[in-house]
Amino acid sequence: MSTKHLIYMPLGGAGEIGMNCYVYGYGPKGRERYILVDVGVTFPDMDGSPGVDLIFPDVQWISDRADRLDAIFITHAHEDHVGAIGHLWHRLRAPVYCRAFTALHAKRKMEEQGQNPENINVVGAWPETTKAGDFKVGFVPISHSIPESSALVIDTPEGRIVHTGDFKLDHSPVVGEAFDPKLYADIAKDGVLALVCDSTNVFSGHAGRSEATVGPEITKLISSQKGMVVATTFASNVARVKTLAEAGIAAGRSVCLLGRAMQRMVAASMESGVLSEFPHTVSVEEARDIPRQSLMLIVTGSQGERRAASAQLARGKYLGLSMDDGDTFLFSSKVIPGNERGVIRIINAYSEMGVDVVDDNDGMYHVSGHANRPDLLEMQNIVNPQIVVPMHGEHRHLREHTKLAAQAGRGSVLAPNGTCISLSGNEPKVVEYVETGRTYLDGSVLIGALDGVVRDRIRMALNGHVIVTLIMDENDDPLGDPWVEIMGLPEIGRSGSPVVDVIEADLAQAVNRAANKVLLDDAKLDDMLSKTARQSANNEIGRKPEVTVVVSRLS
Amino acid sequence: MSTKHLIYMPLGGAGEIGMNCYVYGYGPKGRERYILVDVGVTFPDMDGSPGVDLIFPDVQWISDRADRLDAIFITHAHEDHVGAIGHLWHRLRAPVYCRAFTALHAKRKMEEQGQNPENINVVGAWPETTKAGDFKVGFVPISHSIPESSALVIDTPEGRIVHTGDFKLDHSPVVGEAFDPKLYADIAKDGVLALVCDSTNVFSGHAGRSEATVGPEITKLISSQKGMVVATTFASNVARVKTLAEAGIAAGRSVCLLGRAMQRMVAASMESGVLSEFPHTVSVEEARDIPRQSLMLIVTGSQGERRAASAQLARGKYLGLSMDDGDTFLFSSKVIPGNERGVIRIINAYSEMGVDVVDDNDGMYHVSGHANRPDLLEMQNIVNPQIVVPMHGEHRHLREHTKLAAQAGRGSVLAPNGTCISLSGNEPKVVEYVETGRTYLDGSVLIGALDGVVRDRIRMALNGHVIVTLIMDENDDPLGDPWVEIMGLPEIGRSGSPVVDVIEADLAQAVNRAANKVLLDDAKLDDMLSKTARQSANNEIGRKPEVTVVVSRLS
Repeated sequence: MSTKHLIYMPLGGAGEIGMNCYVYGYGPKGRERYILVDVGVTFPDMDGSPGVDLIFPDVQWISDRADRLDAIFITHAHEDHVGAIGHLWHRLRAPVYCRAFTALHAKRKMEEQGQNPENINVVGAWPETTKAGDFKVGFVPISHSIPESSALVIDTPEGRIVHTGDFKLDHSPVVGEAFDPKLYADIAKDGVLALVCDSTNVFSGHAGRSEATVGPEITKLISSQKGMVVATTFASNVARVKTLAEAGIAAGRSVCLLGRAMQRMVAASMESGVLSEFPHTVSVEEARDIPRQSLMLIVTGSQGERRAASAQLARGKYLGLSMDDGDTFLFSSKVIPGNERGVIRIINAYSEMGVDVVDDNDGMYHVSGHANRPDLLEMQNIVNPQIVVPMHGEHRHLREHTKLAAQAGRGSVLAPNGTCISLSGNEPKVVEYVETGRTYLDGSVLIGALDGVVRDRIRMALNGHVIVTLIMDENDDPLGDPWVEIMGLPEIGRSGSPVVDVIEADLAQAVNRAANKVLLDDAKLDDMLSKTARQSANNEIGRKPEVTVVVSRLS
Repeated sequence: MSTKHLIYMPLGGAGEIGMNCYVYGYGPKGRERYILVDVGVTFPDMDGSPGVDLIFPDVQWISDRADRLDAIFITHAHEDHVGAIGHLWHRLRAPVYCRAFTALHAKRKMEEQGQNPENINVVGAWPETTKAGDFKVGFVPISHSIPESSALVIDTPEGRIVHTGDFKLDHSPVVGEAFDPKLYADIAKDGVLALVCDSTNVFSGHAGRSEATVGPEITKLISSQKGMVVATTFASNVARVKTLAEAGIAAGRSVCLLGRAMQRMVAASMESGVLSEFPHTVSVEEARDIPRQSLMLIVTGSQGERRAASAQLARGKYLGLSMDDGDTFLFSSKVIPGNERGVIRIINAYSEMGVDVVDDNDGMYHVSGHANRPDLLEMQNIVNPQIVVPMHGEHRHLREHTKLAAQAGRGSVLAPNGTCISLSGNEPKVVEYVETGRTYLDGSVLIGALDGVVRDRIRMALNGHVIVTLIMDENDDPLGDPWVEIMGLPEIGRSGSPVVDVIEADLAQAVNRAANKVLLDDAKLDDMLSKTARQSANNEIGRKPEVTVVVSRLS
């Protein structure tokens, strides 16, 4: 038996829906050569990461071994697969391979971060393959909710791996390549070692519906509306954007695309040849002069994002356009868990304007881009792998996916982020657990999720912040009393006096009583002032704030 | 025509699902006498109200007129109807009326806030009525998800109003009174002026299901489990708690109630006579010695609350009990929008333990406590009011409810919080718009939502906080350089030097260059230091922080 082995290890994406990043390696243990699949982002939220701009997988492990990283493959252009490439490439420094449409986005992301876009290599679809060390990788078209999504066929010295990327089994996807079961059966005919598979919709019991089923319903809806119609979806769902535009035109309306991402995606689709034609649209300037019953807007902001067109319209005028009583707003999308509050806020704002909001509650105007439970089984049956490796999901999805495989009599392995699995030998085994985590883009700085920076922000948000300043004179005696400033605390507490005055009085008393050894010792003095301020605030307003103490010694 | 009029005005609950608070008034305009229905709370979230403990309606308007407030009626014991009574009663000072079970909770809330619980008066069900000024109010049993929920029949000089409170049309509610259409038809037989009606489930198209349908499914589920079973629901849903306990016992298990609220609600139900019997339960101590396949826990925390039993078990041991591979966790509840993240966190934590989580995705183990769309129509048909006044809902629910009434050929009025409606005359008209809002319980202090305190906390969470201190000597010259402390900012920025050092250097330079008129003027100096620090941080870390400047003058 060779001492070489084949490994698989998720750095991101197996433990969340987001920031996909998967390592494959082959070689002697500890000296493998690697490829990386996807370098995605996930999005911050106020609960856990306030103020953070973007979240990346912690790529320290592979970055430490970048000299043995032969290539990076990007399955498709969704942010959670390609979004971090510009930010993290300087730590990976390997050639990046993807198909044309994806490459347009990847190159822009490289440029935006000052990286050379020539590191992005455009490759054709299967049967074309790219050699990277002992791996040979091909992009097999697969249906999803963005053009040119691909599964990867990864040929290794130990056998063939099919890495699905995000997918659904759509035989009529409106834009781009339909799922072709024959092609996958052909790829699998000599045996597949592992099916590394999207788990997002493993809890959805019914078979997925085709993108083509949405158009007629939307056309019907728009035709029956009397006011302006505004529709939103993910801009990257080019098929849906096209469906919406065609439906608008079929209903006798002029169509205007609103929001930068919306226009960019359609342009990229034309440029890359993904779209050969797109219905005629009007500019914002033209739209302003079109009677509202003859106008349809297709806008960004399906997740309630504050700066997107949907939210701007909910707050009033946007680029000279506004919504009014009798208009209709269509969410041709589903709310990603965690975004409910933002979306509901917009719906209520529209309600106040008298706008009818139509959402996806009844599933008529949206279909998912991910394979549902029966579709996952169908994929397993087509590819017939030795084992199933669930990826792209929270822990609950991965676990359910292994149970699904077991129900079908297949082996599987539950490998959350940081679990290094050997795929050599008769069955997969855990080689080691690697420390993984999250890296935050915070302003223009990359920080570790556990650095404490964001923890401090959350604490200030929950507790408020008190600043205590004290000047000690040349003899190390207090020069005047401590001075207090507050931020994020009520101004008046139970005594009816300003909170600042109460805390200052308590601090003055504490300083007067303090022993010399406290006054002379910065750490002790800081600690005493901090504790006193916290206790004083707690008495007065029932809350222990964060405290920053600044002692200035004139000595 | 009399100059007296009848008014209705929501102070809370008509614009959110939460903090219900409705004013009815009768008398000459501006000199009406009032009653108040419900004094509820709503819950804070990290997005909009970090650090806040509870949210109340702003009752300033009625508090200013408390001398003309004759009574407060509480429809049922849910927090969003009774939760603020202890905190706000001192501003209302009117006798409170409710039924026995509700009164137990209202009295405890009064006691907890140092108010006299004797202000809570227990009244019997309809046909008993309570006179309050020109109003006569009766509590009519109605089915919901907590015992002794009641609609109010409010007889006024201008006619009869039916205020539903929260309700569903349940003919077999397991605990408490079934909905009795004959009783409501009888109440309505001489005509009803207005049906003021719950709107929560107006978007649910199918008829609601009875509480009695849940038990058999849960029994089946528990019987098929091999490990320990843990189930959660709202503690106040006493019928469900009983159903769960009976199901556990039917499956041959010992049942243990975990979490303070769970035990309190069952005790209150026994004390008030709502429950005549409850299945035998074991103590936590006993539970520890029972083999897990013979044990069922019924726990608090259906919404993922961090301190509830469900979350504690998800983090590890709780009171000596813990979950393990092969156990099952049942959410016999639905996730309230906005709570998804917390619930998903728990589900994933259980997944990591190997616990199977069963939730309400397929609607088998939970039914809603609110009337669905067809049920709302049925209620309208039974009561046959002159107009429908939608309440208890976000704006989108209220608006949809008016459309539902219109579809049935009925008049209705859309009255969000602060809309004072006259119900006198032939049709309802808006008398005035009153400023309403939210009051925060923040620690032990009540603050206005717009006071800026929470806004500052959110800003610190998003931007971090920089503290600049500078000492000016007796001659108003800087004594040394400005000193900087940071909280919630990255420590190292683009230059590779500590951010603190970079900002201090920029500040020192700015102070050295500053004109005397700036150095001598506190406001100007503060402004200059603040702007410099923000700009410096922005250059270094791409983020403009909140800045607090403390200048100490020795002169």
